[in-house]
Amino acid sequence: MSVLVVGSVAYDTVITPAGKREDALGGSATYFSLSGSRFTAISVVAVVGDDFQSEHVDILTSQGVDTSGLESRRGKSFRWSGEYGTEDVSTRQTLDTQLNVFAEFSPKLAPHHRRAPYVFLANIDPELQLEVLSQVEPSPILVALDSMNFWIEGKNSLLREVVKKVDVLFTDEGEIRELSGEVNLVRAAKRVKQMGPSIVIVKRGEHGVLLFKGGEAFAAPAFPLGNVVDPTGAGDAFAGGFMGYLASTGDLSPSGFRRATVLGSVMGSFAVESFSVDRLYAVSNEDIEARFRSFSKLSQFKALTINESLPWRANT
Amino acid sequence: MSVLVVGSVAYDTVITPAGKREDALGGSATYFSLSGSRFTAISVVAVVGDDFQSEHVDILTSQGVDTSGLESRRGKSFRWSGEYGTEDVSTRQTLDTQLNVFAEFSPKLAPHHRRAPYVFLANIDPELQLEVLSQVEPSPILVALDSMNFWIEGKNSLLREVVKKVDVLFTDEGEIRELSGEVNLVRAAKRVKQMGPSIVIVKRGEHGVLLFKGGEAFAAPAFPLGNVVDPTGAGDAFAGGFMGYLASTGDLSPSGFRRATVLGSVMGSFAVESFSVDRLYAVSNEDIEARFRSFSKLSQFKALTINESLPWRANT
Repeated sequence: MSVLVVGSVAYDTVITPAGKREDALGGSATYFSLSGSRFTAISVVAVVGDDFQSEHVDILTSQGVDTSGLESRRGKSFRWSGEYGTEDVSTRQTLDTQLNVFAEFSPKLAPHHRRAPYVFLANIDPELQLEVLSQVEPSPILVALDSMNFWIEGKNSLLREVVKKVDVLFTDEGEIRELSGEVNLVRAAKRVKQMGPSIVIVKRGEHGVLLFKGGEAFAAPAFPLGNVVDPTGAGDAFAGGFMGYLASTGDLSPSGFRRATVLGSVMGSFAVESFSVDRLYAVSNEDIEARFRSFSKLSQFKALTINESLPWRANT
Repeated sequence: MSVLVVGSVAYDTVITPAGKREDALGGSATYFSLSGSRFTAISVVAVVGDDFQSEHVDILTSQGVDTSGLESRRGKSFRWSGEYGTEDVSTRQTLDTQLNVFAEFSPKLAPHHRRAPYVFLANIDPELQLEVLSQVEPSPILVALDSMNFWIEGKNSLLREVVKKVDVLFTDEGEIRELSGEVNLVRAAKRVKQMGPSIVIVKRGEHGVLLFKGGEAFAAPAFPLGNVVDPTGAGDAFAGGFMGYLASTGDLSPSGFRRATVLGSVMGSFAVESFSVDRLYAVSNEDIEARFRSFSKLSQFKALTINESLPWRANT
């Protein structure tokens, strides 16, 4: 089944310990689409300026992404610039954000977008996220949301309205603490689930992902990489793999969500191995599948059988 | 088989978001022993002052720990005081360290200590760690080492001598980066393995543990806890469970090391649920086994079978 993503298609300037890349293809919807479209049909709703290069649209369409909802306006495309820590690549500082054409963006969903059974609201103004939800036909199968501290602080009540309406919340450790007012992640996830979403996913970068669903938690490690070039887009590539898996299989069982989480982690791990979408775009399906298989080696161990005990010392 | 641990038996004063505890039983060898003695015979070699209370020795002996190597000297016991962050309990600041009787400690191993097949060198002066190794009979089965930034910076070449002689290095993220000069953990572990240890274990607190052995990595999540009271001793409780499992089973296969890592994580998770050793000491074997079983639920997912593929979109 198809997934609708509403988010940014942008140009990023990024400085990491590995170097600098200027005006490279980026944006949450871009990373999400290139990741998810491996597994299912993805439609993008976003806006770009007249500076947006057709070769960058081609990157999306060549992967089968439906770009009919990619609106082009006079003006410049959304631009973001950031720098990652040299000591700890997981810390980043935003150097510049230019909304440009995004400032006036008002998403208009075409009929086939409205019928999307899976919806991903990438990190944009909660006002726009609400606008999208109001246009989607009743009862999509799964609606997922991403946001950031900027909106948690600046548009808290609007954001809470969106949170109330979604099934899945993607968040990082800082965001969930701020949204819930709880430092402890287990308690924070519990509180956020009381706000609406039945599933809370805490993305922890190089420390992996925690999924909370019902009374259960599932922890997926990050794939240990010897070469992290640019962490930008890892979270959206994760969300793309996650939603892509669910939409492709329709498997919303606990086991399905676990696999979706692992596949998301795999896609995120490719995203960070290059600047921009270079690696995510170029990686072969064989490499994706091989890394998915490696995840078992990475995290699996021999569980105790029902009749087996831990090796207690005789007299304890 | 038995494990020898050389480290500190101490009194800690700890401030955490959950409160304050003064002059409570602590020390690396204490946490290690109480954890590991569930699974195998543990002998402690350490020094305490004449202020050390007999009830605290009883805590160790009542768990079957061999305290014949616990030397008592005139003077005060080793004391440490620290405070954990209110926002992020994983950050801590040392407020005070008083070596006291530990300043003059010179470990003397009794014959049965020298024959220990498993040895854990807890975080103490690398000079003492070398002294211990020189007394141990040739070719113990497994020697493991813990250290800290203080020694990496202050006694780097001595510490490297110790590192050269051990099989397993326990470290945290900051320490392995400092020791190896590599920010990336995969590369850092590779470099440390070239220094001597065949196994490198990176303890990441609430983010779990990474084990590097041969060309493989194994990632164990931290057990998600709703109530973290005091992180002190988690790393040593981890090491105790890890070494205890290996010494008890003798299973040094990849699968054995994975289970040892999970059991270490389980023991560490109990250590942080109270101040001092309260919970680690009181927890029942049934609770330990139940949490070990929960670890499977926490981290296991359905791997792809050999004939199974990821759910690729038809035309990719």
